[in-house]
This record gives sequence, C-alpha cells and structure tokens, in this order.
Amino acid sequence: MRVKKFGFLLLGLALPVLSAGQGPDHIPKDAAPGEMMVRIAEIEIEPVFLDEYRSILKEEAEASVRLEPGVICIYPMYQKEHPVEIRILEVYASEDAYKAHLQTPHFKHYKTATEKMVRSLELVEMKPIDKKAMSQIFGKLNTWESKN
Amino acid sequence: MRVKKFGFLLLGLALPVLSAGQGPDHIPKDAAPGEMMVRIAEIEIEPVFLDEYRSILKEEAEASVRLEPGVICIYPMYQKEHPVEIRILEVYASEDAYKAHLQTPHFKHYKTATEKMVRSLELVEMKPIDKKAMSQIFGKLNTWESKN
Repeated sequence: MRVKKFGFLLLGLALPVLSAGQGPDHIPKDAAPGEMMVRIAEIEIEPVFLDEYRSILKEEAEASVRLEPGVICIYPMYQKEHPVEIRILEVYASEDAYKAHLQTPHFKHYKTATEKMVRSLELVEMKPIDKKAMSQIFGKLNTWESKN
Repeated sequence: MRVKKFGFLLLGLALPVLSAGQGPDHIPKDAAPGEMMVRIAEIEIEPVFLDEYRSILKEEAEASVRLEPGVICIYPMYQKEHPVEIRILEVYASEDAYKAHLQTPHFKHYKTATEKMVRSLELVEMKPIDKKAMSQIFGKLNTWESKN
C-alpha cells in the first residue's frame, strides 16, 4: 500500500471551544497536579451562529496551540452529518497548564464572544488507553515532516 | 506559566477499535479518493470483557500506527466516568489508506477477537475545522521532541 497524500499531517489540535460558559470550576476535582488532562468537548451550536462560531473557535485554537506550551493538542471538528455538533479533542500537559489557559486573553475573548452561540456544552473527561502510543505517533509525525 | 511534564507528548493515536464488526461497507460513500478521513468511533464494551478488549485494542492500535503509513493517527480513549465507553479519534491519509488498513492481519485479528465483546459501535464521520492546524501542532510536537 502506498499513500502519498501527507502534505499536512493530521492532528490539527487546537483548543478553546471547550470553554464556552466554562470556568475553573470545570477542572476535574480528582485530577493529579502533574497528570496530563485529556477530554472531548461536546458542543452544540445555534445554527444561525455556526459560521461565526467556527471562525472564532479556529482563531482561539490556533492561538492556544501557538502560544501556550501547556496546550499540547486541541483538535476541533464537527460532525459531517450534523455540522452544529462540534467535538474537540483536548490534551493539556497538566492541570496547571489548563488553569493557565483559562487566564489567557485569547481564551477569555473566545468565552465571551461565543457565549450566546452555544446551545449546550459537555466536557467529557477521558483517559488514554495507551500512554506510550503518544511517543509512537509523535515519532511517526516527525518522520513524515521531514519527508513532506 | 511553566509546564515541565512533556516526557511523552500527547497524541497517542492508535486505531483499530473502530472496526469491531465493521467492514469495507463502512467507508463513507461520498469520501473523495485523496481526502483525509477523520472520525470518532464510539464503542460500548461488555463490562466482563473490558480488560481483555483494551489489551487487544492497544496492540492493534500500536501495530496500525507503526506499520501503516496511511494510518496517520489513532488515539484510543475511554470515558473516565464510564470506562466501558470507548472513544477513538481516527485519522487516515485517504480512503485508500483506510481500505488497505481493513486488509491487514492485525486489523483482521482485532475484528475477529473482539466481535463478541462489543455491545454497540458507531462510527461518526468528522471534518476538521482548521486543516492548517495540523501542521501547526505537528511543528509544536516536533520542537518538543527535541527538548524532551
């Protein structure tokens, strides 16, 4: 099998969505201080605001990944069949990294600007099944970058 | 803010789960041949098989990422509050890459071995909100690797 379509690699992980109407009280109470936080944000957007919301999210996600060392990965998506259903894979290096994220200007802007656009928001805490898989994927991405 | 817990980076993307009881007929009919495929597999496991299932999934995911150039990313997780609820972020380079994946020995083994363990399976097709975010994250991971 040969695949040649690796121009841009995958993992466009960026964040903020998770945050509409969300504050520090959303930090899991049992999170270990140095433990990585993984979750999937499930967000439904008011249809009339869909384009605007996506645009704001895209900017916020980009800024978070670019500016914050503790925002490891944020990958915002929408369901192909139900575009108002947003899903974001979020990975923070630690609880402290997440707390710091909540205080950034780009996050605060996102939160304020999108408040009226969000119909529902659920932050589902996740655990990775294989932590070592991260370094494996990482190594693979690294190899690809040098080729593409 | 300083975060020092970047030993292994994030994105432990690995795959196979999506596949219990699944075959080539699950390829989206409207997928463009060279277009990247992104989806979230939502799988519920019979509680009695949970440990066994995770173990098989972990092996299959690891093999897929390691051996298949077209398996860009597979990140298997479970819900912290409901561990029988598995979620996998899957990214394939193209439809062809996905078809090739379905024919691999490790995928076929996974599919057969876990068939009785899966209570329900839904493959939710997704679209990334910012394709360029991929290269951004990629660059970030790359920088981190050289530091850690």
